[in-house]
Amino acid sequence: MHTDPHTPDLRPDSAAHPHGHRPMGHEAEDERPYGVEPEFVEEIVALLRARERDAVLARLEALHAADIADLIEQADPAERADLIDLLPAELDGEVLSYLNPDLREALIGRFEPQELAAAVADLDTDDAVELIEDLDAETRAQILAKLPDAERALVQENLTYDEDSAGRMMQRELVAVPEFWTVGKTIDFVRAATDTLPEDFYDIFIVDPMHRVVGAVPLSRLLRQRRAMRIADLVAGEVDVIPATMERAEVANLFRQYALVSAPVVDPSGRLIGVITVDDVVRIIDEEAEDDLRKLSGSGDTGVFSGIADIARGRVGWLTVNLATAFLASGVISLFEGTIEQIVALAVLMPIVASMGGNAGTQTLTVVVRALATHELSSANAMRVVGKELLVGLINGGIFAVMVGVIALLWYGPMIGIVIGLAMIINLVVAGLSGALIPLGLEKLGVDPAVSSAVFLTTVTDVVGFLAFLGLASAFLL
Amino acid sequence: MHTDPHTPDLRPDSAAHPHGHRPMGHEAEDERPYGVEPEFVEEIVALLRARERDAVLARLEALHAADIADLIEQADPAERADLIDLLPAELDGEVLSYLNPDLREALIGRFEPQELAAAVADLDTDDAVELIEDLDAETRAQILAKLPDAERALVQENLTYDEDSAGRMMQRELVAVPEFWTVGKTIDFVRAATDTLPEDFYDIFIVDPMHRVVGAVPLSRLLRQRRAMRIADLVAGEVDVIPATMERAEVANLFRQYALVSAPVVDPSGRLIGVITVDDVVRIIDEEAEDDLRKLSGSGDTGVFSGIADIARGRVGWLTVNLATAFLASGVISLFEGTIEQIVALAVLMPIVASMGGNAGTQTLTVVVRALATHELSSANAMRVVGKELLVGLINGGIFAVMVGVIALLWYGPMIGIVIGLAMIINLVVAGLSGALIPLGLEKLGVDPAVSSAVFLTTVTDVVGFLAFLGLASAFLL
Repeated sequence: MHTDPHTPDLRPDSAAHPHGHRPMGHEAEDERPYGVEPEFVEEIVALLRARERDAVLARLEALHAADIADLIEQADPAERADLIDLLPAELDGEVLSYLNPDLREALIGRFEPQELAAAVADLDTDDAVELIEDLDAETRAQILAKLPDAERALVQENLTYDEDSAGRMMQRELVAVPEFWTVGKTIDFVRAATDTLPEDFYDIFIVDPMHRVVGAVPLSRLLRQRRAMRIADLVAGEVDVIPATMERAEVANLFRQYALVSAPVVDPSGRLIGVITVDDVVRIIDEEAEDDLRKLSGSGDTGVFSGIADIARGRVGWLTVNLATAFLASGVISLFEGTIEQIVALAVLMPIVASMGGNAGTQTLTVVVRALATHELSSANAMRVVGKELLVGLINGGIFAVMVGVIALLWYGPMIGIVIGLAMIINLVVAGLSGALIPLGLEKLGVDPAVSSAVFLTTVTDVVGFLAFLGLASAFLL
Repeated sequence: MHTDPHTPDLRPDSAAHPHGHRPMGHEAEDERPYGVEPEFVEEIVALLRARERDAVLARLEALHAADIADLIEQADPAERADLIDLLPAELDGEVLSYLNPDLREALIGRFEPQELAAAVADLDTDDAVELIEDLDAETRAQILAKLPDAERALVQENLTYDEDSAGRMMQRELVAVPEFWTVGKTIDFVRAATDTLPEDFYDIFIVDPMHRVVGAVPLSRLLRQRRAMRIADLVAGEVDVIPATMERAEVANLFRQYALVSAPVVDPSGRLIGVITVDDVVRIIDEEAEDDLRKLSGSGDTGVFSGIADIARGRVGWLTVNLATAFLASGVISLFEGTIEQIVALAVLMPIVASMGGNAGTQTLTVVVRALATHELSSANAMRVVGKELLVGLINGGIFAVMVGVIALLWYGPMIGIVIGLAMIINLVVAGLSGALIPLGLEKLGVDPAVSSAVFLTTVTDVVGFLAFLGLASAFLL
């Protein structure tokens, strides 16, 4: 099926998607048509152990850089180093930029600064910046010193912007033309300037004499027009301009909101200084979603490729906070030691009230945190959502009050059934309200609701759960 | 700053991004340069209540369809209906396709089938399909009957594919040319065929006489070449072909893996039948990340725009499962009623052991579930991750055993401190192991680990936590 007359050229600057021999349409349907299979990883590992250097190289040649990065990720640590050492120099940059950041940091020491500088020089500015931003100051300076002057200036300028800003992630290579050019002149310019252009681009930006953006023309629209047409006449509506200081999460929201493929980045005076393309945004959307997940669960910023000490350290903070709140809950229980001594059934049943509250609250919390992150929720509709959660808490509180109450009644008698049912309603209503109000309040205070909401929530549901159940029991059962 | 000589044209088919008067580079930095501000929503709502129809329309005209959708989402339910009724007919389709699906379902009843058919006919197939797939069979049939024959056939064919498949989400409008064409002929074709082409496209697909894909050429590469060049000579490497039956989550992974902007969709015989573009993939990546979050928290498939009954119903299932596991934990506690009666401190302290285990396990679980979803984790490196989590559990178990032990010792004496410390180590090791092994095991069994892992995990950490603490206490303290 593949009739490409060329041998695939693997140099990173030669092709947008220099893909290798992945299976295509005629494959078995349950096979993943991309990435590397575990069997392939095992084959490569076996070859590496047998020191079959050439056989490994032959297999690597057919792979996309993203797949080589996957292969390195899936291999054992010992083989990872071997693979990196084997990598042809012209692949270094692209493979490194696809590699999981934790692993990249661990493996980058295997390269000489000279090699890294060559790898970085092959990349577009955004990928180059990503590669060197995590290096220690000394290595970074060594690499920068070895870059061509023009490239070094651009990379250094990107590095002056905040880590999570549009300026840090933008690519400097772009196509900008003056307003008075025609479609024909623009096409001729692109044909002639082939060396200084980005590898791929999707929009041509139109700038005024001060280099401020006045419009953007998608390539598919340019291509449809006669050569004599003025390019400025192809602009429809205003262009979405990204200030270099914009946070990357907001950049992602902007791309998502207007289904953009690329957008210009401007400095404070409105001058065009770079471009952000959707492939970087896809990565960010992914990382932001993962960040939210990790923050909600308190997993720290470590992943499956982090070192053991980093993982353990990253999680201690959250567990310590959780310990403090657990002791707070214990303090509440200890107020009722006398009651528990008389009715030991309370000790048996009390975790149910707290646990149901925690789970119900987390359900609300997840939805609200996510809606805040995607701007579906704002002060305009917040109170409606809180009202809804109050009612949902009442409805589900009622349902589970009956269920828990009946079981407790069969187990320990009618009075305990009534007490635990009432406590359940109270805690589920409080859980629904807290699940909505805690993240909304934190957002209002300028605190990221994903990070700290869950601690506050479980503190509330534990304390209220134990207090309601043991308090009602003290009042009605003694 | 805006020098576009045209009045922005708002018809949906006239411009890729017909953006309105959003602030640009010169705005205050903390202002969101997109979307609608709460003050703007309030202004519109006030105008609607004052029946200032024309003033509202004037403000809507300057807005992007995505922002009108946002406005509808943020308004009160009563104003939502008013806004929908006010909407100019030519905007209906695009605004509806940007609207949150829950709200769309609620509001679509305000349109006559005739209006909906006109709106659907304005859209590309993928957006048209998304709009009608959730309608009841009768309305859907009414709309389909009113569509032009060619469009109806395409929409109906997309609907034959599974809801979460590439075939359902693909767009049928695309640019395909034969292998022997030149760059010049391709450009002339695009210029002439302007009516039948998609609104935006990023790659030109090259097909053989059987209409099978043999390559893809990004527009930026086409534009750089001389007219006489054969287009087939511009293909580099194989093209990523998507079988129409591929699941959309896998489509998203494929785009992410190779940083694609568009990819061809083929039928089982390899014939080109559609295209998927990155803007749809961005939406899917978002939805999949949100799905994972909701599944992990058991929030059901409802969001902030769902009805109260739907939300309550969507959450009951998970809470019921949680109730069952909570009773299981209670059962374990009840085995030690005699012990608790003698040492009531155990009732005070036991939630700490269970809670710390649950939290530590969730940290591991989150990382592992996410790594499985993004294919960073596979059978090739699974056991290394399990080993790491075992060690992290031991390290953090040790740290928190000391912290909790010391506090318990000061509170209730040395023996209780030792017992709770030991129980803490046991439960944190079990939590780390379960957090990794449960999702890995479910994945192996073909069950989505995001859905059910958390229940199994908290069951394990609760049961083991109570059993270890109360069991050790019975053995050593009585």
